[in-house]
Amino acid sequence: MPRFGNLRDGPAPQAPGAETFTELLHAGGARVERIASRAVRDGAWYEQPWPEFVLLVAGAGRLAFADGTEQALGPGDWAHLPAGCRHRVAWTDPGAETIWLAVHLP
Amino acid sequence: MPRFGNLRDGPAPQAPGAETFTELLHAGGARVERIASRAVRDGAWYEQPWPEFVLLVAGAGRLAFADGTEQALGPGDWAHLPAGCRHRVAWTDPGAETIWLAVHLP
Repeated sequence: MPRFGNLRDGPAPQAPGAETFTELLHAGGARVERIASRAVRDGAWYEQPWPEFVLLVAGAGRLAFADGTEQALGPGDWAHLPAGCRHRVAWTDPGAETIWLAVHLP
Repeated sequence: MPRFGNLRDGPAPQAPGAETFTELLHAGGARVERIASRAVRDGAWYEQPWPEFVLLVAGAGRLAFADGTEQALGPGDWAHLPAGCRHRVAWTDPGAETIWLAVHLP
């Protein structure tokens, strides 16, 4: 049976700088998750041995990379982060929840 | 190197009822694609041997299932279609482009 939901529904970050992660689907080594963040400043670095596709659904954010570059993202903006691409969330909107869809590929 | 884009950018359907498909990423047997549709009425049936996750990003649409049920989707609404779940796009907004993100899982 199909399942339905809306990305705007789900746990909200409880404190500035917090992020919540909700797994929506896990199949064949791939994982789809909803992320909600608020007022992130210089989040933790990630470096995964798998590719990731991330879509900013609502709000605003900035990703930072190991070479010092940053990329601002608004609604509809996506990023393909290849395996081994060191990245972090540098900033998200302090005044509103920022919602992301992340797809972790096998 | 990371790649970036926006789901609102891309090929537009050229005629009422048309859909365009753009592959954004293909890795490990999973595929992420952008779909743009306009004024679809009773689209083709799909029945895939893999699970699909689909997100409506902009516009409005309705999915139909083999048991006769339909599900209306607006921005932020997602559907998880398990492997073998027969479905089709029954309707999309006649007055605006409807943008989807589809993730085909391994």
